[in-house]
Amino acid sequence: MFKAKVYVTTKANVLDPQGAAVQQALHTMGYAAVDDVRIGKYMELTFDTTDRAQAESELEQMCKKLLANPVVEDYRYELED
Amino acid sequence: MFKAKVYVTTKANVLDPQGAAVQQALHTMGYAAVDDVRIGKYMELTFDTTDRAQAESELEQMCKKLLANPVVEDYRYELED
Repeated sequence: MFKAKVYVTTKANVLDPQGAAVQQALHTMGYAAVDDVRIGKYMELTFDTTDRAQAESELEQMCKKLLANPVVEDYRYELED
Repeated sequence: MFKAKVYVTTKANVLDPQGAAVQQALHTMGYAAVDDVRIGKYMELTFDTTDRAQAESELEQMCKKLLANPVVEDYRYELED
């Protein structure tokens, strides 16, 4: 069994309206020290296999094909035993 | 300046339809080894302050009030210099 933690974030040069909206809300709530907010996806996947290489290569493919949009998003992941 | 990384996930006993849909799609794509998928939010916030205690206490309040829904979500965060 492996557990993958996947982090998908919008690329730095891509506008993040959701982040801007949250930042605005936080300022309205009085949290003026908040300078920038970026919002992305955090996913936890469990792999029912004992083959780490298989899990890693499949995870890379999944990120490219489904979990992240390579045009506007970056992704990184951690694979734990 | 501090950088906060916030992870918001649905509580373990709460149904995650988005995660179930992604798991189904991954199986359809041939990734049968994927056993469970949980999808949450990943946020990066920048604090324009030098007071770590202030950043930490405000971050805790923000999570409780806005960034996470304490009824169905858990949150954790890391605060970096």
